Amino acid sequence: MINPFFKNNGPFKISDILRLINLDDLKTVNDQKINDIKDLFTSDNNDITFFHSKKYKDIAKNTKASFCLTTESLKNELPRNCEPLIVKNVLVSTSKVTSKFYPSSINDNFDFTAKDIIDTKFKDKVNFGKNVLIGDNVTLGSNCLIGHNTIIEQNVIIGDNCSIGSNVIIRNTLINNNVSVLDNCVIGKHGFGFFPINEKNLRYPHIGIVIIGENSEIGCGCTIDRGSMSNTVIGKNTFLDNQIHIAHNVKIGENSIIAGQVGIAGSSILGNNVRIGGQAGISGHLTIGNNVEIAGGSGVIKDISDNSKVMGYPAKNIRDFLKDNK
Amino acid sequence: MINPFFKNNGPFKISDILRLINLDDLKTVNDQKINDIKDLFTSDNNDITFFHSKKYKDIAKNTKASFCLTTESLKNELPRNCEPLIVKNVLVSTSKVTSKFYPSSINDNFDFTAKDIIDTKFKDKVNFGKNVLIGDNVTLGSNCLIGHNTIIEQNVIIGDNCSIGSNVIIRNTLINNNVSVLDNCVIGKHGFGFFPINEKNLRYPHIGIVIIGENSEIGCGCTIDRGSMSNTVIGKNTFLDNQIHIAHNVKIGENSIIAGQVGIAGSSILGNNVRIGGQAGISGHLTIGNNVEIAGGSGVIKDISDNSKVMGYPAKNIRDFLKDNK
Amino acid sequence: MINPFFKNNGPFKISDILRLINLDDLKTVNDQKINDIKDLFTSDNNDITFFHSKKYKDIAKNTKASFCLTTESLKNELPRNCEPLIVKNVLVSTSKVTSKFYPSSINDNFDFTAKDIIDTKFKDKVNFGKNVLIGDNVTLGSNCLIGHNTIIEQNVIIGDNCSIGSNVIIRNTLINNNVSVLDNCVIGKHGFGFFPINEKNLRYPHIGIVIIGENSEIGCGCTIDRGSMSNTVIGKNTFLDNQIHIAHNVKIGENSIIAGQVGIAGSSILGNNVRIGGQAGISGHLTIGNNVEIAGGSGVIKDISDNSKVMGYPAKNIRDFLKDNK
Repeated sequence: MINPFFKNNGPFKISDILRLINLDDLKTVNDQKINDIKDLFTSDNNDITFFHSKKYKDIAKNTKASFCLTTESLKNELPRNCEPLIVKNVLVSTSKVTSKFYPSSINDNFDFTAKDIIDTKFKDKVNFGKNVLIGDNVTLGSNCLIGHNTIIEQNVIIGDNCSIGSNVIIRNTLINNNVSVLDNCVIGKHGFGFFPINEKNLRYPHIGIVIIGENSEIGCGCTIDRGSMSNTVIGKNTFLDNQIHIAHNVKIGENSIIAGQVGIAGSSILGNNVRIGGQAGISGHLTIGNNVEIAGGSGVIKDISDNSKVMGYPAKNIRDFLKDNK
Repeated sequence: MINPFFKNNGPFKISDILRLINLDDLKTVNDQKINDIKDLFTSDNNDITFFHSKKYKDIAKNTKASFCLTTESLKNELPRNCEPLIVKNVLVSTSKVTSKFYPSSINDNFDFTAKDIIDTKFKDKVNFGKNVLIGDNVTLGSNCLIGHNTIIEQNVIIGDNCSIGSNVIIRNTLINNNVSVLDNCVIGKHGFGFFPINEKNLRYPHIGIVIIGENSEIGCGCTIDRGSMSNTVIGKNTFLDNQIHIAHNVKIGENSIIAGQVGIAGSSILGNNVRIGGQAGISGHLTIGNNVEIAGGSGVIKDISDNSKVMGYPAKNIRDFLKDNK
Repeated sequence: MINPFFKNNGPFKISDILRLINLDDLKTVNDQKINDIKDLFTSDNNDITFFHSKKYKDIAKNTKASFCLTTESLKNELPRNCEPLIVKNVLVSTSKVTSKFYPSSINDNFDFTAKDIIDTKFKDKVNFGKNVLIGDNVTLGSNCLIGHNTIIEQNVIIGDNCSIGSNVIIRNTLINNNVSVLDNCVIGKHGFGFFPINEKNLRYPHIGIVIIGENSEIGCGCTIDRGSMSNTVIGKNTFLDNQIHIAHNVKIGENSIIAGQVGIAGSSILGNNVRIGGQAGISGHLTIGNNVEIAGGSGVIKDISDNSKVMGYPAKNIRDFLKDNK
């Protein structure tokens, strides 16, 4: 859980946190201060964490967190140092606690701190077009270009020699050197993550960021959402064509080539040297290996191992697909 | 045919209308005034309507319209009060007559009435970014946010507590309370509706609007077209992810969840609690029931009944699809 | 290779060109001047060309070029007047030489020549919105409309009676009379063309343009890339719906109708009167005949002959598809 941008409003007393999740009755040994909410692996002493699925039990066994939001059936997997807090819905409670620590990570209203670049320290540092806006907490490298009407909102770091197009909107994003972002992209907005509740869905916080590796290119009209509890990552020297959608927490490796209108759903992880044809889609929470080729128009719904070539919906070995569809 | 925005240029004498559709020779009893053009169901005495397909014959039987554009083979379904006007192509003639009543509904040129929000009455009512433009006939509720470079064109009503992102363009749209519209959306433009004619297609009027229910969210880069003769509707508490396209006259129910890059073609109607995975497509003029789940990447080409789960192209029962594709 | 916009920096001595592609050792009879780089068919005496695939051998036999970048196995197809230059990778060498002649065709940084239309000669000629920018070398016809925040970048010709929407970005494009371009389009950027090299891909130049025929319409949020060595063409009276992606070198015929979210990959050529349903995709380098209908959601991976109706992925005869999928 790397967190360079979102301000942690903590620490909070554990009693305040318990009240928030309707565990007021629970008595703790002392009313200690909790520094942060993190995942099972990265949390430390005096942090609170969450544990909602058996598949994380090996990590849960070794967590250093002091408290853990979990269920009756999972609580016995936790180590002694970590006190289980039994809640009805682990993710909803996690969302509430995260919102307390990071209130600014829930909504993505327009950035009212943004001002005309002419009124900032960057006016002599970068080449920029008309009507460029820059928000608070922005760092721009040397030799950068920023196109007309582009808005670099709060919490953005851009490296050297980057070319940002026109009508681009970026927030909560770290862009390395020599990256091109073409016109009309929206990068770093919260992902499509919420708890469905009739009448009024509950948005969960997105405290991750977007990281774009050096020498990469993002085509026109792409949307890349920031992560919820981890980051969304585009590897080095990876090129994206136009109108691509990358959902929250996705990680794409290096030297990959992704053609137009591809969509990658949340939390999928792709290896290096991956090639994806136009309009292909990848479902969420999948692992795609290195050197994988996915034919245009394919729909990938399960993991793909290294060096595979797949095609079809559901995507399968390309030779099998072509033989079956002669 | 709800019509809060488009100005009706009528009434017109029936003789003027007959001339427009090359029925000059036709003599009517008297040269009465016609107030409006409406569909078979909503039209009233002194209105003109149209009837082009047998499937509407039960509604046609009871229409209150005084005149009806129709064909030789359908005219006998009409009641006595309604005089049939036999034309070669009902929809083309309907288009011509509608254009006479609503000339502003055909083209979607940029809104030249739009002016800087600083020069409007809203400058003290809402929080807004740089370079925000507001057209004529706009109403904004309390506690709204409007992002940078956003254009609220003519004929828009926005409720309370709405958050409109940056680079958004909205026209001919009614947005209820607590709605978020994210960056780069275009909402309320005319649909992809015209009569194909070699050399020069004939656009037909779009006099419907877009209605977005309360507590809904529209993701980045979505396009939602307004209706032609009815409205395009997004129900309450329905969330749309990024890069979604909703065509004219589509109606989506409440509490629905639609993932990235989905496309819904014209005039399809979806029930409540519908969930659609990324990149799925729904053909036009279909009816999708309540509580339906459509897997990502599916292509729906026929109606789906309540409580179904479908997958594939063409979409079928998800268990059958997965069994057939093991 | 029509080239109205990109400035040719030549002529260059052949010795300078040889050095660029690591053929310094090669001695030519005299150090003649080379005027241009063109394809096999259009190149003339004192031009350099390239020949990388057997399928062009009939054209190669008759080329008038003085020099040709090619391989050991192809060189014997060339005529006497044309001296073969044997290189390891013909397209990479072609790219390097093209970049020398047309250095401005590689990168698509924002157009720093763009200035407020109020400061140009067009301020009394066209009707325009707020914050409209116009680059160098732009021609606008009479009776045009240009929407708010739109950027007409360098090298654009727009005919009479055109309506350009808001938030549109256009460069290197020729638009004929009576064309509508709706909001948020990006037209004329370089295509997704480069040589994949680990660590740092090599972009190849795009010296083609986009040509849009008269009476056409381009929907909201479309991206149309310019050609690399030829042009990207949209025929007369062809209508594109929203969110369509047209890749570089694609040629679409007249009187065609393309529904929302369709994608057409690089260098495919479509005939006249083609109809494509929503979300369909067409692979690169294909030929689609006249009067073809492609059903929504289809994935076309091979050529389609005139008057065919296809559906599915891979797309096949629509009756076969529907029979196989009952």
